[in-house]
Amino acid sequence: MASFSHKLPFCTQCSTNQSGQKPNKHKLQCLKINGTKSFSPSKVDLLSQDHGIAITSVDTDENVHVFEQQVRQQIPTKKQLVDPYRQGMIIEEGVGYRQTVVVRSYEVGPDKTATIESLLNFLQETALNHVWMSGLLSDGFGATHGMMRNNLIWVVSRMQLQVDHYPIWGEVMEIDTWVGSSGKNGMRRDWLLRSQVTGLVFARATSTWVMINQQTRRLSKMPDEVRAELSPWFIQKQAIEEESPEKIDKLDNNARYVHSDLKTIPDEFLEKHQLSGIVLEYRRECGSSDMVQSLCDPQEDGMLKSGNGLLGGSLNQGPFSYTHLLQIKGKPKNEEIVRGKTTWKKRLPFPP
Amino acid sequence: MASFSHKLPFCTQCSTNQSGQKPNKHKLQCLKINGTKSFSPSKVDLLSQDHGIAITSVDTDENVHVFEQQVRQQIPTKKQLVDPYRQGMIIEEGVGYRQTVVVRSYEVGPDKTATIESLLNFLQETALNHVWMSGLLSDGFGATHGMMRNNLIWVVSRMQLQVDHYPIWGEVMEIDTWVGSSGKNGMRRDWLLRSQVTGLVFARATSTWVMINQQTRRLSKMPDEVRAELSPWFIQKQAIEEESPEKIDKLDNNARYVHSDLKTIPDEFLEKHQLSGIVLEYRRECGSSDMVQSLCDPQEDGMLKSGNGLLGGSLNQGPFSYTHLLQIKGKPKNEEIVRGKTTWKKRLPFPP
Repeated sequence: MASFSHKLPFCTQCSTNQSGQKPNKHKLQCLKINGTKSFSPSKVDLLSQDHGIAITSVDTDENVHVFEQQVRQQIPTKKQLVDPYRQGMIIEEGVGYRQTVVVRSYEVGPDKTATIESLLNFLQETALNHVWMSGLLSDGFGATHGMMRNNLIWVVSRMQLQVDHYPIWGEVMEIDTWVGSSGKNGMRRDWLLRSQVTGLVFARATSTWVMINQQTRRLSKMPDEVRAELSPWFIQKQAIEEESPEKIDKLDNNARYVHSDLKTIPDEFLEKHQLSGIVLEYRRECGSSDMVQSLCDPQEDGMLKSGNGLLGGSLNQGPFSYTHLLQIKGKPKNEEIVRGKTTWKKRLPFPP
Repeated sequence: MASFSHKLPFCTQCSTNQSGQKPNKHKLQCLKINGTKSFSPSKVDLLSQDHGIAITSVDTDENVHVFEQQVRQQIPTKKQLVDPYRQGMIIEEGVGYRQTVVVRSYEVGPDKTATIESLLNFLQETALNHVWMSGLLSDGFGATHGMMRNNLIWVVSRMQLQVDHYPIWGEVMEIDTWVGSSGKNGMRRDWLLRSQVTGLVFARATSTWVMINQQTRRLSKMPDEVRAELSPWFIQKQAIEEESPEKIDKLDNNARYVHSDLKTIPDEFLEKHQLSGIVLEYRRECGSSDMVQSLCDPQEDGMLKSGNGLLGGSLNQGPFSYTHLLQIKGKPKNEEIVRGKTTWKKRLPFPP
């Protein structure tokens, strides 16, 4: 499990919304043919009241499909204060979101602590459920109604996660998330992950989001109607205090480790060290057919200058930092996908 | 996402319980040094009452560690009827378990339906939470107190999953699971996955479990004290009705597809087809250093005999079946890890 071996859930999943395809006319018919239980009208009426789903008449095939999706997903069209299924609630005077999340058995590694991939998944999930509760969520992955009308989707431009303590299997977490403005056309989203029992802070995260046009894949200004949707939710609070984000150097072929897959940090280092911080700066989309290359270099900061480098004699000291680059192998030149910086500390022995 | 590309969460995670290592003495100290919020005694007292945690005096470092794990995980030592965090409850006259599970954003594929890996994860999670609620769970992955005393862990010997409909992102599921006897020394575990809103059955699953000694890795009889723990929970109900489990043929090098990684079904088939059933028969453990080979052959049943085989002219018909074998490449002979059979149906077009 190297720093880049997790899915990059933010960027890639934003582009999986298959808009413009024909609606699936056969699905509801299929459900009926198989003799499975159909919707109970009274239950649907109840849901439409509870969840603010706008149900009009169900006439055409397309409406039937939209209706079926609405009933199955129950995306609210009005702001909800509490969601018992997602164990979520609106906090921070009506604009923040808190969700209770139990670390599941398949979200931990061999040492029973949540994997970095799981932590990033929790961030994505609570962010989307925040939008879900807001009543702003359209059919896409986090896009608002106004964004859908303007054919816009979110992409993450920067993601920073600091892990103080890893939650363990079965641990009950409280995850808070909230949003703020970022420059003229961006949005900041922050998170705080704590123990529900003790209040211990597990992790903090902050991210920056911009909008791209779903067809052209080019950056977009924030349209006024989208600003009107989002800005009432913006607050100033920051999960990670930083004066100005640290720049990440661009690596070149002089990097110590250059691999044709995603994993550049050696297993022997990963076995003895635990990720304590990661910063990712996304520069470009990549597709499933792109050939990628991963570069990685120990960061020459004060801690390291006196040692033999990260994988030499200083294996047992910390913290350590690496600089990363994931790029598309291309001609005439390679194209940056994401720059990264990871910080590591010595892993404690496994619990018994 | 081929049939074997998912983690095999049952078998592999059972063997990750690192028993016998020294307890982590530094962890609690570390929490204190960092000045983070410590446990509130009144909250802990409350928890110990609510969850039936046996809290004795906290004196030695080891006891402190055990105490810390108990407070963090809150594994009940008495049977619980309801768990609000896991959204679970005991059903079926006190022996079955039902959990409400919302399909999360990172558990679905590009078509917004839950992946097969996610479905298998849901099975593992609800099974473990069932044991959790029972008050029988020791520190391991699903092992009871009696199993721990006898140094035994669970391994899955057979797993069968039938998917009628894939749940979609945001869908609220009700997952029921229960256990029964299987032969003299085994246990059957079944699941039923339904829509919480409509009652529609998404999937059914059944599995067979046996015990191995954690050190010797050899099959074990079920000790009387373990039978006494488990048998009060056994019921006869079966999620999948079958007279006698179908035998899966062992493939050899004449199989149509032989690959040195885990994925043998071609992408072009996966894009147009959806898994509707999978049976896995586990034969042997494999380790992280083993070289594995995956074999796959279209099943010559009635449907296929008249066609050109699966990837020929009959791509648009269904259902289709494949036989699978995952083996360790070894000398003088290869060793079977798991035999499998998968059944597929044509994938419906993506929803809009």
